[in-house]
Amino acid sequence: MLQIWALDGIPEITPGDDLVQAILDAVGDPLRDGDIVVVTSKVVSKAEGRIIRADDREDAITRETVRLVASRTSPTGHVTRIVENPLGIVSAAAGVDASNTPEGTVLLLPVDPDASARALATGLRAATGAHVGVIVTDTLGRAWREGQTDHAIGAGGVHVFEDLRGTTDAEGRPLVVTLPCVADEIAAATDLVKGKAARRPVAIVRGRADLVGDLDLPGARSIVRDPARDMFRQGADEAYAEGFAAGRDAAG
Amino acid sequence: MLQIWALDGIPEITPGDDLVQAILDAVGDPLRDGDIVVVTSKVVSKAEGRIIRADDREDAITRETVRLVASRTSPTGHVTRIVENPLGIVSAAAGVDASNTPEGTVLLLPVDPDASARALATGLRAATGAHVGVIVTDTLGRAWREGQTDHAIGAGGVHVFEDLRGTTDAEGRPLVVTLPCVADEIAAATDLVKGKAARRPVAIVRGRADLVGDLDLPGARSIVRDPARDMFRQGADEAYAEGFAAGRDAAG
Repeated sequence: MLQIWALDGIPEITPGDDLVQAILDAVGDPLRDGDIVVVTSKVVSKAEGRIIRADDREDAITRETVRLVASRTSPTGHVTRIVENPLGIVSAAAGVDASNTPEGTVLLLPVDPDASARALATGLRAATGAHVGVIVTDTLGRAWREGQTDHAIGAGGVHVFEDLRGTTDAEGRPLVVTLPCVADEIAAATDLVKGKAARRPVAIVRGRADLVGDLDLPGARSIVRDPARDMFRQGADEAYAEGFAAGRDAAG
Repeated sequence: MLQIWALDGIPEITPGDDLVQAILDAVGDPLRDGDIVVVTSKVVSKAEGRIIRADDREDAITRETVRLVASRTSPTGHVTRIVENPLGIVSAAAGVDASNTPEGTVLLLPVDPDASARALATGLRAATGAHVGVIVTDTLGRAWREGQTDHAIGAGGVHVFEDLRGTTDAEGRPLVVTLPCVADEIAAATDLVKGKAARRPVAIVRGRADLVGDLDLPGARSIVRDPARDMFRQGADEAYAEGFAAGRDAAG
């Protein structure tokens, strides 16, 4: 049985706030060994002072973009960009968040969400004695599918993959290519209790204690596919245009 | 509080088996109004007799492919293909499953997983009187991220999106682009209790009764992005090659 619930009573977080203490104050049922604490990156960013002045969200996205992956202009002139941010994450907004922040400001992602998650796990373990893991989440769109789901962008003391390679299926054959990204599945699951409009940025997942481990486990950075293995490193239009120019030059 | 658990004791399913009855036999705690029953497509396919003889899984994938999206050959000669299947779903295996099936056979996806999900929801509602929803899942890889997560490929009597458009954030501003794909989040969440190697293909999600609705709600087909809105309808290499050829021809 997996139990997932959001904490009520996390206050508005401001730069310098102690997020470990805010979670401890809000947690009703004491944390237990094997609990996974799942925190929306928004409050981690706020605690870390990642709010910047920006009248224009688009400008902020441009500054956070390390690589333009794809863009498209709608008939009404609206430009949709898919970009890679400094964490290697491909998304529409480069992690720039203008919702739930004061007018004229935007929120950037934590500089190192894996370090943030490990610091939270360290703090929560020290304060409670419970062997807990921490996942930091962000809301991302997907290729080929409408809508968004929450994903893991930081992980501390929790396995991000459940490695089944080397195990066998019910027929005794090896499960060769199966590598469930449990950290993303946990992030998605907690979005079902956190809500987007409500201020419930922290959820607890109880029932997968086997996924909690040492603080030096690989973080969520290891989920990001290496560019050499990425078959969708560019949008189709962008790749076509690059190819067209190269083909024209080669022939001309 | 969200509670998620897998049913023990679902027997090996064979063509023609009554999946509604198998679920009812395995469900311990009786189903309640608002429960969401999440079923791995594998057992739906087996009940529907979608097992075919195929000595070669790659041949079966080719036959299930309506469009090659991207392919890449490794230095060792292994070809990775990303293809679109008849349901519009983009994945590595076109839904062809060779795990947990007898040697020399493969399992195809249900012909119409939304219809399968609606039939299961209809049967479970009739048998129990409980207003339940059904989601049928498949395991899919993702662009840009390693590993796989479970996704919704069929839905009956359950909202696949939680439409927050028109609502406001905590600062009173409209949440314009937020469209959480709750069906995919539910699918992902249940993978955490089903396991891949074990025969636990059915899970119950209790605690989001607000997502359960009429049987004529849009199915999981509505999650598939329309090609006109898909910026990654081809792999980067394929689009580049097409562009190169067109550019060469235009110049020559």
